[in-house]
Amino acid sequence: MPKREKKSLSIVDISKLAGVSVATVSRVINKNGRFSAETQKRVEEIISENNYVPNLVAKGLKTKKTNFIGVIVPDITNEFFSMVAVEIQNSLRQHGYFALICNTREDISIEREYLDILNGIQMSGLIFISGNTRIENESVRFLPTVYIDRAPEYLGKSLVIESDNYSGGRMAANTLFEAGCRNIACLRYAKNISSHQRRHEGYRYELEARGLSFNASLQFSVDEVSYNAAKTKMLEVMESGLAFDGIFCTTDWLALGTVAALSERGKKVPGDVKVVGFDDILSSRLSSSPLTTIRQQVDIMGRIAADEIIKMINGENIDTSKIEIAVSLVKRQTT
Amino acid sequence: MPKREKKSLSIVDISKLAGVSVATVSRVINKNGRFSAETQKRVEEIISENNYVPNLVAKGLKTKKTNFIGVIVPDITNEFFSMVAVEIQNSLRQHGYFALICNTREDISIEREYLDILNGIQMSGLIFISGNTRIENESVRFLPTVYIDRAPEYLGKSLVIESDNYSGGRMAANTLFEAGCRNIACLRYAKNISSHQRRHEGYRYELEARGLSFNASLQFSVDEVSYNAAKTKMLEVMESGLAFDGIFCTTDWLALGTVAALSERGKKVPGDVKVVGFDDILSSRLSSSPLTTIRQQVDIMGRIAADEIIKMINGENIDTSKIEIAVSLVKRQTT
Repeated sequence: MPKREKKSLSIVDISKLAGVSVATVSRVINKNGRFSAETQKRVEEIISENNYVPNLVAKGLKTKKTNFIGVIVPDITNEFFSMVAVEIQNSLRQHGYFALICNTREDISIEREYLDILNGIQMSGLIFISGNTRIENESVRFLPTVYIDRAPEYLGKSLVIESDNYSGGRMAANTLFEAGCRNIACLRYAKNISSHQRRHEGYRYELEARGLSFNASLQFSVDEVSYNAAKTKMLEVMESGLAFDGIFCTTDWLALGTVAALSERGKKVPGDVKVVGFDDILSSRLSSSPLTTIRQQVDIMGRIAADEIIKMINGENIDTSKIEIAVSLVKRQTT
Repeated sequence: MPKREKKSLSIVDISKLAGVSVATVSRVINKNGRFSAETQKRVEEIISENNYVPNLVAKGLKTKKTNFIGVIVPDITNEFFSMVAVEIQNSLRQHGYFALICNTREDISIEREYLDILNGIQMSGLIFISGNTRIENESVRFLPTVYIDRAPEYLGKSLVIESDNYSGGRMAANTLFEAGCRNIACLRYAKNISSHQRRHEGYRYELEARGLSFNASLQFSVDEVSYNAAKTKMLEVMESGLAFDGIFCTTDWLALGTVAALSERGKKVPGDVKVVGFDDILSSRLSSSPLTTIRQQVDIMGRIAADEIIKMINGENIDTSKIEIAVSLVKRQTT
């Protein structure tokens, strides 16, 4: 006679035995409508056969068998991040998992508090786009975690998915050089986020490879990745009299703000100054000056993140600790 | 001697007694770093004095005293919704609450499943922007709930916050009429979402008040609120030979897609056709044809939603079951 398993079942176990969804089991337990009498009977039998003691949901949480995954993003009003989050959500759903989206506004204390909440409700895994240089990941060290776009300082067994930012930076600088620019500025995010840093390194490498000297006085930065911050910054720069004939902006919103500042000061784009962005968001296409930009494959990033986290949750081995996704140049009207 | 309270404490009670955040209490319980020895001592004393039995988080969940609120939105890639969600989040944080954002893609089954998950993890309240005509709110009938933008069929004790969509529709039609248009079309969302319906009713009322007959053949709709859906639809409309000299689109993304379709067929905006949108998203300002549009006060909607849900959670009486926020005309280059 097989040994009777005494450990109480998780909500996932019950849903499997009953052949219904976790949500349905939860509804039966909570006596919350929308299930057939037959389903109710089956679920309740499994529960009583296994000496199950409610609260089932809390139990499910306790055994870490939940069907939701925390998705931490810096700013959902930035289309790049909202698109990645939606792609993650779509892919997770195909695996029966749900994304709980936490918007951190790049604030480290908000990021920490969300991690605590997500831990408290026992998420099964975490997909993490941090707004910080030093990603606080102690509390998720033992949890399946996929980082997107921004790598933590110590990776452990987690995975990083990012665009080939270095090549993107090179492409941007090269495009400006080929278009005749010789004083090529850069506007980037002031925080040393790994993705922005790699884009900047690629830009710098390409300038030097082309025999241009790296001009420290043409390196600008903003404390916030937004249209308004970039516009304000570039108006200041022009006020100071610094001259440049090309500029690489490390995101499209920074490029859109830069184009607006240039126009406001009567500079023609691309006649006087050429501009290259990064991301290829919809607004860069619809803008009055459609942007030349470096396209990130948001759909692929989101899909791979979801697929890999599910593998990790299921205990499968992950082959590599870093997946790099190719980028490409999209030429429009600012170069 | 006062009667000793035997009911076990919630995580919120403990955090109040200890004078630390709920997140900190959770960290102490879960032995998850980042708190001082003093904090640990204080929290543990309160727990033992009150015969508290872990799992604390699960308990907190069970007693419905959590510090997070579900925020259900139809589409975070639409700036209107992402801006509302971020405003809600900012305001909730000032009350010590956190927004867990659930993106439904207007899919009723996803909406239901998120409601079950949020119920399962015992959210304290729900802010709900539904993607559906018949909002499935049985499962949250007893939970503090604020609806934004879209009203449910039966409201119960919940609250609806919405823009004055009817006046907005009137303003849009009036603007087109005043600009000389006499064949004024409308492009709206095919689903009978209350906000879109009210905008359309206002538009229709204004046309008739101005002595124009309502032309059923100039009423167009799309199954999805997006730039691409609107562009495709309006290319089809022009293909069919229908003529109009003005069009009210019930969102900015629909208006941006319409402008793109008109341009692609060689129609001048506003020379040949005038266009009015609704929302006033950033892209409508940056577009190559900056939109005339009806501005919604996203910041106020988000703030009020957060303030009201906190009142409901705290058991305060809510004065009214519906709060209507004023809209205004922003005139740019498409009229």
